[in-house]
Amino acid sequence: MSLSNVSIDGKRLLADLYKLRTFGTYKTGVHRPTYSEVDMASREWICDQMRAAGLTPEIDGVGNVIGRGEGDGPRVLLGSHTETQPHAGWLDGALGVMYGLEVARALGRGVDVVSWADEEGHYSSFPGSRSYVGLFSEADIDAGANKYTGMSMREALAAAGLAGRPRIAHQPGRYRGYLEAHIEQGDTLESCDQKIGVVTSIVGIWAYRIVFTGVQNHAGTTRMAIRKDAGLAAAKLITAIDARFPTICGPRTVWTVGRITLDPGAGSIIPGGAEVVFQFRDADPDMLLKLQATLETLVAEANQGPCTAELINVSRSIPSIMDASFQNALERAAERHAPGLHQRMPSGAGHDAQWLARVMPSAMLFIPSIGGISHHWSENTDDADIVLGCQVMATAVAEILGQS
Amino acid sequence: MSLSNVSIDGKRLLADLYKLRTFGTYKTGVHRPTYSEVDMASREWICDQMRAAGLTPEIDGVGNVIGRGEGDGPRVLLGSHTETQPHAGWLDGALGVMYGLEVARALGRGVDVVSWADEEGHYSSFPGSRSYVGLFSEADIDAGANKYTGMSMREALAAAGLAGRPRIAHQPGRYRGYLEAHIEQGDTLESCDQKIGVVTSIVGIWAYRIVFTGVQNHAGTTRMAIRKDAGLAAAKLITAIDARFPTICGPRTVWTVGRITLDPGAGSIIPGGAEVVFQFRDADPDMLLKLQATLETLVAEANQGPCTAELINVSRSIPSIMDASFQNALERAAERHAPGLHQRMPSGAGHDAQWLARVMPSAMLFIPSIGGISHHWSENTDDADIVLGCQVMATAVAEILGQS
Repeated sequence: MSLSNVSIDGKRLLADLYKLRTFGTYKTGVHRPTYSEVDMASREWICDQMRAAGLTPEIDGVGNVIGRGEGDGPRVLLGSHTETQPHAGWLDGALGVMYGLEVARALGRGVDVVSWADEEGHYSSFPGSRSYVGLFSEADIDAGANKYTGMSMREALAAAGLAGRPRIAHQPGRYRGYLEAHIEQGDTLESCDQKIGVVTSIVGIWAYRIVFTGVQNHAGTTRMAIRKDAGLAAAKLITAIDARFPTICGPRTVWTVGRITLDPGAGSIIPGGAEVVFQFRDADPDMLLKLQATLETLVAEANQGPCTAELINVSRSIPSIMDASFQNALERAAERHAPGLHQRMPSGAGHDAQWLARVMPSAMLFIPSIGGISHHWSENTDDADIVLGCQVMATAVAEILGQS
Repeated sequence: MSLSNVSIDGKRLLADLYKLRTFGTYKTGVHRPTYSEVDMASREWICDQMRAAGLTPEIDGVGNVIGRGEGDGPRVLLGSHTETQPHAGWLDGALGVMYGLEVARALGRGVDVVSWADEEGHYSSFPGSRSYVGLFSEADIDAGANKYTGMSMREALAAAGLAGRPRIAHQPGRYRGYLEAHIEQGDTLESCDQKIGVVTSIVGIWAYRIVFTGVQNHAGTTRMAIRKDAGLAAAKLITAIDARFPTICGPRTVWTVGRITLDPGAGSIIPGGAEVVFQFRDADPDMLLKLQATLETLVAEANQGPCTAELINVSRSIPSIMDASFQNALERAAERHAPGLHQRMPSGAGHDAQWLARVMPSAMLFIPSIGGISHHWSENTDDADIVLGCQVMATAVAEILGQS
């Protein structure tokens, strides 16, 4: 078979995805938390599929499943992650891992397949892909804890039978690069009736805690004029962000208040403290700086009120640029299989590819999410779109491997 | 001793307050939750003091402690409550009960003393005073549960040894009325350098849950233009209330957002739901109606946005007018002992007196709170102000009892 005419088997791909969904089925979605029994069972099943595809599978000390092939020819790494958010969708990262498996089978050589552990961050931030690229230390494992149950990452790894296993590290020179497919998780493709997104970059996410301090007091006996209501100060800042950010943001900028906590949080007590969990995302480093400067101005304005407001940066991820040559290969393959139905677009979500991009050329392909829904059991994509995306990936990988 | 020249013993009063503080001391304040071991021990100690003052004490089936005197002459009921908010102040309601005891001792006759159970609402809303006036049923006891621990009220009463005890009901005709002293819990008296507040009315409290429904989605992949962010809708309504209410409110109106909850409340998820716990207070029934109408308008305006907003009334208490003749007696006594240093004022907080006012003439006296602080362990009042307030109460009670 000529690499340039590689054909994937859509039925086989869908059958694998349906089978993977049986590990932790929840309604039409999946509940498969990192290192849970069902997650580990699914990793063993993935190992079986890798073996059947001629790869040698290994589950490493952080839970990464990597299936590697023999031989010396050009080679790429394909994959994503298979654990899920709580009561979430059946595709998400599972799609990218099953694409990897199908492309490996279709091409017969040159494709290693990976399922990175805990991309969804039950225990830490991208521990699987960061471990592989050498940016996740033993101390990081020690610090990891389940954000829902509090169980330590060490304890969870031991319970999953992974304690003491070596962690697989990137071997420089082994791969031409890394490719990852994922559902879009937004409605951009669907709203344009397009089938393939070629990812240009993965956005930077800058996250903050904004802490307001006022004076806790009795909600009945404290006159309005002397109140220092931290909750009100928080609401006003959120409203001010909503008014100001649209005047300075880029076309793809997003910002979100995910949590507001009032202290003590009782109906008859004026809150003396408030905390707002805030983040913004953009693929342009200059825009991220501009957004932060605007946020700093708004927080300074909030400090003119009766409460103090403190801006605490929690994290600043650097936008990750996808490899230009891989983008071109994906675009050519998309134009061949879905002419006119593809576009280049940034990824608003973080993905393992942002870490792989630090050690080798990396790229991502998106397929549409019905209604833009993700991280919910109702998440879905048309079967035809799933098959089409895998064919585009296979053709692009064939081109990448065929280049001299 | 002539009733009109009654003198209280300030040292004895302060010694009793200091002693009562030893039941559950926390820093300079007190932690004495309703029906706790330390609360029940303090009730037994209060019974001892009542006995020493010539009263016959009884702890009833809801935890009320009532000390009743013999004889047929005119009689008033004095008191307040002795349990505390968590880690709260040493005075609060304890002051009013110790005033009752001291006035009973100073006058020698005509004063029954009461400590109502659970005014602070650990298990229910004013169960003690409502039980006494016949507005707290067995079903209400069945429904009661500790808002911090979840323990049922029945279980707590049994653990406190009160299961099966009769509940004391109001005997029509026994009293000329009810008087209650309390710290102001605000800074009105302190900010005017005044010593005595004669309470004109206890405000009505109208409380609401405002429930916003949007669409939960991914904080990175969902474009700003299509978001239905319930948390943002909540923040905007809170800001709108802050802008609109001052244009229509009365001089003593207060309003408070005590809690904001976003669902699911995670940094990277656009909240699909939000709940705001809101209340306002005023002594004027027409103003309460006007505030509610304005709130309804603002919620209707919020419904023009991308999320729905639902206004759910949780409670509407009726403002309670204090007895005019008792107010006059308290004012005359205040003018005698603190000339020019008293004022009439509404109570912004709820008190047991609002329930007693349903069955007999009732009135309240306030003394200053240092810094307006209450429900916090640092709550305090100058000893001299404590003693002065008790003397004013004693003189007023003497006048009320002396009237033919």
